[in-house]
Amino acid sequence: MSTTEADTDAPAFARNDRNRLRRLHERGRYDKASVHAILDAAMICHIAYAIDGQPFCTATAFWREGDRLYWHGSSASRMLRAQRPGLPVCLTVTHLDSLVLARCGFNHSVDYRSAMCFGVAHIVEDPAEKAAALDRMIDRFYPGRAASLRTSTVQELKATTVIGMQIEDAVGKVRSKGVADEEEDYALPIYAARFPVRTVIGAVEPCSRLPAGVPRPDGLDGFTPDRRLDEIMLENHHKYEEP
Amino acid sequence: MSTTEADTDAPAFARNDRNRLRRLHERGRYDKASVHAILDAAMICHIAYAIDGQPFCTATAFWREGDRLYWHGSSASRMLRAQRPGLPVCLTVTHLDSLVLARCGFNHSVDYRSAMCFGVAHIVEDPAEKAAALDRMIDRFYPGRAASLRTSTVQELKATTVIGMQIEDAVGKVRSKGVADEEEDYALPIYAARFPVRTVIGAVEPCSRLPAGVPRPDGLDGFTPDRRLDEIMLENHHKYEEP
Repeated sequence: MSTTEADTDAPAFARNDRNRLRRLHERGRYDKASVHAILDAAMICHIAYAIDGQPFCTATAFWREGDRLYWHGSSASRMLRAQRPGLPVCLTVTHLDSLVLARCGFNHSVDYRSAMCFGVAHIVEDPAEKAAALDRMIDRFYPGRAASLRTSTVQELKATTVIGMQIEDAVGKVRSKGVADEEEDYALPIYAARFPVRTVIGAVEPCSRLPAGVPRPDGLDGFTPDRRLDEIMLENHHKYEEP
Repeated sequence: MSTTEADTDAPAFARNDRNRLRRLHERGRYDKASVHAILDAAMICHIAYAIDGQPFCTATAFWREGDRLYWHGSSASRMLRAQRPGLPVCLTVTHLDSLVLARCGFNHSVDYRSAMCFGVAHIVEDPAEKAAALDRMIDRFYPGRAASLRTSTVQELKATTVIGMQIEDAVGKVRSKGVADEEEDYALPIYAARFPVRTVIGAVEPCSRLPAGVPRPDGLDGFTPDRRLDEIMLENHHKYEEP
């Protein structure tokens, strides 16, 4: 089911049994630029994996580097250690953009952007590689921050698991049309509307134990109150990709 | 691994191999009231399931009725039809409440509320039961709305799959402490802060084809601009549970 190594330079993911949409094909996005834009606008994903046939769905912070995804601290880590060949996973990101209230139940919907990525998860075992990946995670979310932090201890690094996965194939799904009713329903005296939804940052709360004179670093300038988190995350991803 | 039928009246979920937290035990919530509060504050969940060992993670709207969860239109539906004994799933809800910037990489975190629910998914096959469930879904999200809509056609009901699952066991996870650094790190000249995150409703956009004189129904009064979606959803769940 997976694409071959040679496909990593392709502009789109190959369609196969696991990433091809079964219905609502007009919502599908197989080009990598679209899928990456959905992934890079997020901090949190949900990861599905199965152990002895029992599925688990875990939320975690993640980030993308080219065709690879990374995350850490997953509850899958204990079982991953026992599974050297790696663990098949599906990593999904979902942005909810609006609630759509239509004139019949069937046409009620939501506008959203989602991406499902398939691959095999492996633990990053090399300590130096792991430490570097964790620094990149910090910098991806908070530009330039890693160098300003207290260095990680050996114990802290030992207690952290970093997991990486090559994206073998993926699919984006986008709905962004608001109310879409049957033509004959528009004349009915039924209220219909789009309720926009956005996830935003609030007023920053500096740590109450911050010593006097410690300034807020410039790298955090993007986090302004009421700004959309997806915009900030996408902007910070670009800063991290092209410093 | 599942609890017995007799446990549905218990105030807490039994702990077992699949819902017991492996680490950070202080974050665990096994009482049903805590788990339900996390579920009922959400509209969207992520569902993990596996087909022939391949995991899938799908986002969908869902709702709770007592110890049962319902959702519809999942891409799992085609495969569910072929699987009469039902399909093991893990349904997870996650609310992101803040980003936590600490003085070392290890203590960077997020505040969040999440719930993982385990069970076996079945299709609601009976047409009348299915139609009633879809009406309840509308009313759960939008109080009193189902009765105001154009009646669903036979074709629309046929094209919709409703899936139900008894919650066999579940676990909530909550972090809400903001910055928590090592005692010796607080004196360091490193910026640390909590960035609150909230998901809110924007200004309502009535359908551009709404006939003149169609009022906005009172049942939608809770959806006021800038109000938190989790608050609205929890409030609407309570209206639906105790009309």
